[in-house]
Amino acid sequence: MTDKALSHITILDFSHLLQGPFATQLLADMGANVIKIERPGKGDLFRSLTFRDTWLGGESPNFLAWNRNKRSLALNLKSPEARAAIMKLAETADVVVQNFRPGVMARLGYGYEDFRAVNPRIVYCSGSGYGEDGPYENRPGQDMLVQGLTGIMAATGQADHPPTPVGAGFSDQVGAMNMVYGILSALLWRERSGKGQEVKVNLLAGMLAHQNQEMVMAMNTGADFERPNSGIGHPGMDAPFGTYPTTDSWVTIAMSPYATLVGVLGNDDLLRFDDPETLFDQRDAVWRAVAAETGKWSTDALIEALLAADIWCGEVKSHLGAAADPQVAHLGLVTSYEHPRAGTVKVIGPAVGMSATPPAISRPAPLVGEHTREILASAGYTESEIDDLLAEGAAGVPG
Amino acid sequence: MTDKALSHITILDFSHLLQGPFATQLLADMGANVIKIERPGKGDLFRSLTFRDTWLGGESPNFLAWNRNKRSLALNLKSPEARAAIMKLAETADVVVQNFRPGVMARLGYGYEDFRAVNPRIVYCSGSGYGEDGPYENRPGQDMLVQGLTGIMAATGQADHPPTPVGAGFSDQVGAMNMVYGILSALLWRERSGKGQEVKVNLLAGMLAHQNQEMVMAMNTGADFERPNSGIGHPGMDAPFGTYPTTDSWVTIAMSPYATLVGVLGNDDLLRFDDPETLFDQRDAVWRAVAAETGKWSTDALIEALLAADIWCGEVKSHLGAAADPQVAHLGLVTSYEHPRAGTVKVIGPAVGMSATPPAISRPAPLVGEHTREILASAGYTESEIDDLLAEGAAGVPG
Repeated sequence: MTDKALSHITILDFSHLLQGPFATQLLADMGANVIKIERPGKGDLFRSLTFRDTWLGGESPNFLAWNRNKRSLALNLKSPEARAAIMKLAETADVVVQNFRPGVMARLGYGYEDFRAVNPRIVYCSGSGYGEDGPYENRPGQDMLVQGLTGIMAATGQADHPPTPVGAGFSDQVGAMNMVYGILSALLWRERSGKGQEVKVNLLAGMLAHQNQEMVMAMNTGADFERPNSGIGHPGMDAPFGTYPTTDSWVTIAMSPYATLVGVLGNDDLLRFDDPETLFDQRDAVWRAVAAETGKWSTDALIEALLAADIWCGEVKSHLGAAADPQVAHLGLVTSYEHPRAGTVKVIGPAVGMSATPPAISRPAPLVGEHTREILASAGYTESEIDDLLAEGAAGVPG
Repeated sequence: MTDKALSHITILDFSHLLQGPFATQLLADMGANVIKIERPGKGDLFRSLTFRDTWLGGESPNFLAWNRNKRSLALNLKSPEARAAIMKLAETADVVVQNFRPGVMARLGYGYEDFRAVNPRIVYCSGSGYGEDGPYENRPGQDMLVQGLTGIMAATGQADHPPTPVGAGFSDQVGAMNMVYGILSALLWRERSGKGQEVKVNLLAGMLAHQNQEMVMAMNTGADFERPNSGIGHPGMDAPFGTYPTTDSWVTIAMSPYATLVGVLGNDDLLRFDDPETLFDQRDAVWRAVAAETGKWSTDALIEALLAADIWCGEVKSHLGAAADPQVAHLGLVTSYEHPRAGTVKVIGPAVGMSATPPAISRPAPLVGEHTREILASAGYTESEIDDLLAEGAAGVPG
């Protein structure tokens, strides 16, 4: 087994659903020893949620997507014996991750101060929707709700359509990346200081920080962006930036000289729009005129002609189209792991290349409590002590 | 000045536009000493790009958004004297970041091997659109083009509308976070190994990895998601998940018991849809029926009633609305810095809280070459040597 960047890091992962599990999967891909601590039986809530009743060998695709490279330790957090086991593991762990509602972990005896008492070097990372107090303290913090509050929905889609959520859990995914950013920064500081610290991430702050470009524009001019009423691709952009129809699909055209584009399309009548003010003020009319021309081309012919003229463009693909994309194949981004119940599970592999310590997939997503025995044994529990924990319901193994 | 997590890290930042600059700003917020190396005169391309000819004291809001906490060293990369200065700085630097098109940096003499020769501990991070070779090697890699290729546009918005780009540069922003993830992981490995390495990030891989949940579903069932034709908020979700009109705006409603929602709205006729299959198969009809009811409420009254019934919901806000949000105010997310030309610039502050080493803003975005003299002086250049570099055009200072 080759060395990985984070092979020396052990993470006690109390997180569930998307934000925390994606964060710890990113760390696990880099080699971290992630111990996923779940309730016996049902485990992570994402194990029992899916899109439209779709299951792979009884397993949730959503859970399978965010939990590779981890081992599962099933424990009842309310049991004093389970708490003793966790604190024993914490003595030599490096990181704790959790995304329960604010205050829940501390009430159960698993707050930062509880862990710091047994290991002052521990980095404790909490994820929440809106921070841990304030006017939204009691609101549920969920991905799309945060999209709604932070301007991204109001800036996506067309003016006469409803505000448009992003078709993926971007608030959660950005939150996951912020956890990684905070945890790794804290671990680097620990190398110098010898001390752990508490890291706090919330979805609201993350989504606003990611839109800093749009926020700086709006806050310093006092004017919001106005959505277009066409396939123009960003509320701040002029034509032709956007998505255009072809005979068989759609293409994207990004920042490109308008006259060059018109030259490729071959209808000089479109040059009547060719000045910067018109390309913004009449962008919807420009879009319709350009779309009328692109709609005469097949996708392949149009992309070839545009690329030959150095127009910035590309195809529009579905998820299955993306999986079959030649560049995706060239980069080997689609891979798979073997799961005892779901069989061969196709997944997207690690996105970051590292020359000395490449991230890799070495384990499937675990069953609930699949590694309870081995993790407790390595913490010094005897077989009969583990049997007792199982018998009294403090711990669990797969059913 | 309080210690920060990355105060001991020096970064030579050759990046421009969004992906690289956002990455190095995240590291600079954590205390890294980021030296932004720009061409004399025009500097980073983002200094001369903006939305709709909008400038703040002549500065681009886009540039101001992604370059705080950095110092600018203006050098002509093609000058041998400039190259000598860079390699001198590299002897004690920790990280190099660049996002030129593949191959450009190596041809100029600034590839990984060039830096490794002077400092084997250096971590060298490259960002590209599609990786560094393969069928898309010569295609321009731009944020929206990558959104088009990776399924997110095809999954956003409504079935009878064009594929819908996200109203912010998410491919670039995810790419930035992947740079941070790779660089910090490599720095942690260096603590154990004493060695640097090369880190490669590309937008295509990043956007697919972020959609792993959707990709796992599509690839393992062989079926793509189908977009709704209403304000339903994700192509895989059933009603009521989505955005709904009120008398004065819109609200979001996430996963919530449908019958409870109907109870709040007060029209039992809507209970005819209340079974899981109907809530998916007829989600557009359900959306229209629910929207007819929510449209009778003001936003404030509806949110209050829904929250009282524990329905997961929230307001839909513009960027200016987000800036004025009470929770955003409570968390202090809107802050500002003073810029010599743009004046007081409102920005979104660091998104991650750290108890021992809080990230902070201590410098505005720099002018091109604002710190050329001080950085070269600290590298051992005398004042007259610096004058010579400026006179021959190898270096630059603000005009």
